[in-house]
Amino acid sequence: MGTEFDRDIEITTAAEGEYAAELAPGWVVGGGVNGGYLLAVIGNALRASAPGKPDPIAVTAYYLAASKPGPATIRTRVLREGRGTSTLAADLSQDGTDCITVLATYGDLSTLSDDVRTTAVEPELPALEECLSVSMAPEEIRRIAPLMSRFDLRLDPAYAGWAMGKPSGNGVIQGWLRLNDDREPDPLSLLLAVDALPPVTFDLGMPGWAPTLELSAHIRAVPAKGWLKVRHETRNLAGGMFEEDCVVWDSAGRLVAQSRQLAKAPRPETRG
Amino acid sequence: MGTEFDRDIEITTAAEGEYAAELAPGWVVGGGVNGGYLLAVIGNALRASAPGKPDPIAVTAYYLAASKPGPATIRTRVLREGRGTSTLAADLSQDGTDCITVLATYGDLSTLSDDVRTTAVEPELPALEECLSVSMAPEEIRRIAPLMSRFDLRLDPAYAGWAMGKPSGNGVIQGWLRLNDDREPDPLSLLLAVDALPPVTFDLGMPGWAPTLELSAHIRAVPAKGWLKVRHETRNLAGGMFEEDCVVWDSAGRLVAQSRQLAKAPRPETRG
Repeated sequence: MGTEFDRDIEITTAAEGEYAAELAPGWVVGGGVNGGYLLAVIGNALRASAPGKPDPIAVTAYYLAASKPGPATIRTRVLREGRGTSTLAADLSQDGTDCITVLATYGDLSTLSDDVRTTAVEPELPALEECLSVSMAPEEIRRIAPLMSRFDLRLDPAYAGWAMGKPSGNGVIQGWLRLNDDREPDPLSLLLAVDALPPVTFDLGMPGWAPTLELSAHIRAVPAKGWLKVRHETRNLAGGMFEEDCVVWDSAGRLVAQSRQLAKAPRPETRG
Repeated sequence: MGTEFDRDIEITTAAEGEYAAELAPGWVVGGGVNGGYLLAVIGNALRASAPGKPDPIAVTAYYLAASKPGPATIRTRVLREGRGTSTLAADLSQDGTDCITVLATYGDLSTLSDDVRTTAVEPELPALEECLSVSMAPEEIRRIAPLMSRFDLRLDPAYAGWAMGKPSGNGVIQGWLRLNDDREPDPLSLLLAVDALPPVTFDLGMPGWAPTLELSAHIRAVPAKGWLKVRHETRNLAGGMFEEDCVVWDSAGRLVAQSRQLAKAPRPETRG
């Protein structure tokens, strides 16, 4: 387990159903620690609580308070132990304050049947070398958003105009994603992948932090090795909130994760 | 509160954060009580636990065991009380067995800003009188699925061929929905609306029960009076599971609810 991602999601058992984690400073972005990283840390604790059921199948998080780097406690409860799947709950707290509450279904994705009847269409992305590498972002941005240095993210230029002040207005962001240390994707890292990109509101010309209220991720298959294609889209920004749908496709052309979140739209910038 | 729906979702306070409900036999379908009805009952208890925040904004349910008509206990906990929204948890149990566990965000939809920037497209439905009324289903089907008599549901014939053994194969079901007693829609009844129609797997030629693992609903606006348009769609049936996305539009042409569920696909019929 020598990769950065595996080190940073590590948990140690403190008691029955209680785990200690050390939230790494490298995953900070905007107002706190990235929600996808937190989901992967909690997912790791849930895995430890569901023997024989190593894979997240459905994971839902409600975000209560921003997390910060440093020690965190994760408490898990098994709500129902079934033959094929189990349902669990988890809470992540820091200094006695609950930051995230989670419900999840765990199972073993490798035992699922091979039938696939999908009408979903794989996102079309330009070749890697034609995409915009996030590593080319200005030094001062990378300093306040260290998250951007945790993976190689190549954004489709068609929806990356916001970086130059020219958002496309489509409410779409998509790109190629690969973790540092060539860490291959697995069901746990897909929990990060569904919430690692900038909010789609950037592409609507609304920069700023878009705090997630609720996020549900469905892990639909064990991903193949290699780069992931990740696409985020919103169709309904209304009442100060927007839904953000994410699909993740693996290098074998399979839809491996679907997620939806409800987030608060960034507030319009006040002009003095 | 004279309508059938309001009577059937009624709760009485048993103690602080504990409510008694009587699950009505009229909402039975397939292997148990309809999940959308259960969500509305729980939603009613959550409303009672969130003073000044009458509306569900995000509600997530994990289904643990089938419910049956009769007494049920709902226990709620406030996880975070914010200025605009509160996050809560709820569990519905019968005879000491947990049937559903829920997380939710409540608030006041009437206080949200009026901004709408949506690219979502309203479903096109034939006129009411050109749709197939579920009330025309054979008597023996209506007897084992009393749910069908709780509302007036008019299905778009383009995706209702499964009723005559000719599924369209698109994985879509859509129609007009109106509760009995002309009960006008509100945020609570939208929790029913997102899970009231037959599973979209019917339209893929897979009849049978499709038990929900997880369902998350986002209520995006207070619905206008009148008929609702409800559309369900699946794009990825794989590994014995499928996601089902639902959108609900009101008579004023506004997208009022979005939901996604992960469900188990019906098992292929064994042919003797």
